[in-house]
Amino acid sequence: MSQPVGTLRQQVTGDLYAEVQTFYAQQMRRVDALDIEGFADTFTDDGEVVHAGGHRQSGREEMIAGMRASLPRYRDIAVRHWFGHLIIEPDAADEDTLRVSYYSLVTQTDREGKVAFQPTFTVDDVLVRRDGRLMTRSRVIHRDTPVAPPAS
Amino acid sequence: MSQPVGTLRQQVTGDLYAEVQTFYAQQMRRVDALDIEGFADTFTDDGEVVHAGGHRQSGREEMIAGMRASLPRYRDIAVRHWFGHLIIEPDAADEDTLRVSYYSLVTQTDREGKVAFQPTFTVDDVLVRRDGRLMTRSRVIHRDTPVAPPAS
Amino acid sequence: MSQPVGTLRQQVTGDLYAEVQTFYAQQMRRVDALDIEGFADTFTDDGEVVHAGGHRQSGREEMIAGMRASLPRYRDIAVRHWFGHLIIEPDAADEDTLRVSYYSLVTQTDREGKVAFQPTFTVDDVLVRRDGRLMTRSRVIHRDTPVAPPAS
Repeated sequence: MSQPVGTLRQQVTGDLYAEVQTFYAQQMRRVDALDIEGFADTFTDDGEVVHAGGHRQSGREEMIAGMRASLPRYRDIAVRHWFGHLIIEPDAADEDTLRVSYYSLVTQTDREGKVAFQPTFTVDDVLVRRDGRLMTRSRVIHRDTPVAPPAS
Repeated sequence: MSQPVGTLRQQVTGDLYAEVQTFYAQQMRRVDALDIEGFADTFTDDGEVVHAGGHRQSGREEMIAGMRASLPRYRDIAVRHWFGHLIIEPDAADEDTLRVSYYSLVTQTDREGKVAFQPTFTVDDVLVRRDGRLMTRSRVIHRDTPVAPPAS
Repeated sequence: MSQPVGTLRQQVTGDLYAEVQTFYAQQMRRVDALDIEGFADTFTDDGEVVHAGGHRQSGREEMIAGMRASLPRYRDIAVRHWFGHLIIEPDAADEDTLRVSYYSLVTQTDREGKVAFQPTFTVDDVLVRRDGRLMTRSRVIHRDTPVAPPAS
């Protein structure tokens, strides 16, 4: 099977697309299971997360401590992260570095089955390949805000 | 185009990833159209579904009868099943058997356009290839529940 | 890596699947950013959109005028379009023409972070390749409605 392709400057292959989607599927299963150490393991040692409010967590230890502190919030809800519209751009100079952007929607289902939603986010990741395995080196989370100025 | 890949033990190719996504896209169009027979046809003859409550339906006939019985529930709503975070693992011993896990979110839109949500689910499927075509052999539906014990 | 595939009459490759998903990821980033001209640029000159109510917009100019007129609606909300269950069918006679069908869910997040939902839609697109790049030639948007007649 061969079909012409050509939308990105550096076109992503189907194999890599499937791999990145699978990477996130596994990473999100861990965070949604509140498997804090397992989640941290999907980041490089020097991995960084910049949260929507601007707070920066550097390195796995800080990440783990931050997640531990927020655990009580998830005591009575099942959290699920949903992704959409991934754009995957392999670095032109280094094929083991990928820039990935995606939409994120977070559902919180309580024990009665009622679903609540966090505001939507857009996320910019840098993934790197270490010993053949993808890991997140940096993540910047942007809360989606209106484009136009408020009505006056 | 060639790019290094290596996240799963048994890595899924882009072609297979696209095929499995397409299989579900077609299966969900049938269930969302309340095309009960068409939906049942996407299962093997001995296909099984274990619902979140534990109820098990074995074989197409039982599946069809069960869906017929629940039709009145959908009289005034448009149902749509949304999937996320597929993990596709080809069986190491039999390449015609796939284990697939995914998140599922179900929307119900009424005639006025108001959208309601069922609780979120995580689903474990076994797909098999018969005469070149994918079919579901088994499906186990898990309702997502909080990880931690209730606040006391 | 080689794995058997065979679900569609005209099977979509992983490379094309990734390309079409990437095309929509870029197109939706533009519409969600209210980048009207950038969005119109993802359509052919003679591109057409038939909205759920039946209103037809023909050509980029009409599309741009229509979107400009609806801008005030988005003044205080962040819109995000989520897609699901793509079915991509390359035209048997012309490999540069694709029929694509997908589910669409639209979230609207206000400044306080509250998320509202538009009714769900199913969309039928015709994509064409021009100078190697995918563009939308036609889009027909269907509002999802209940299958069965209203209860009497």
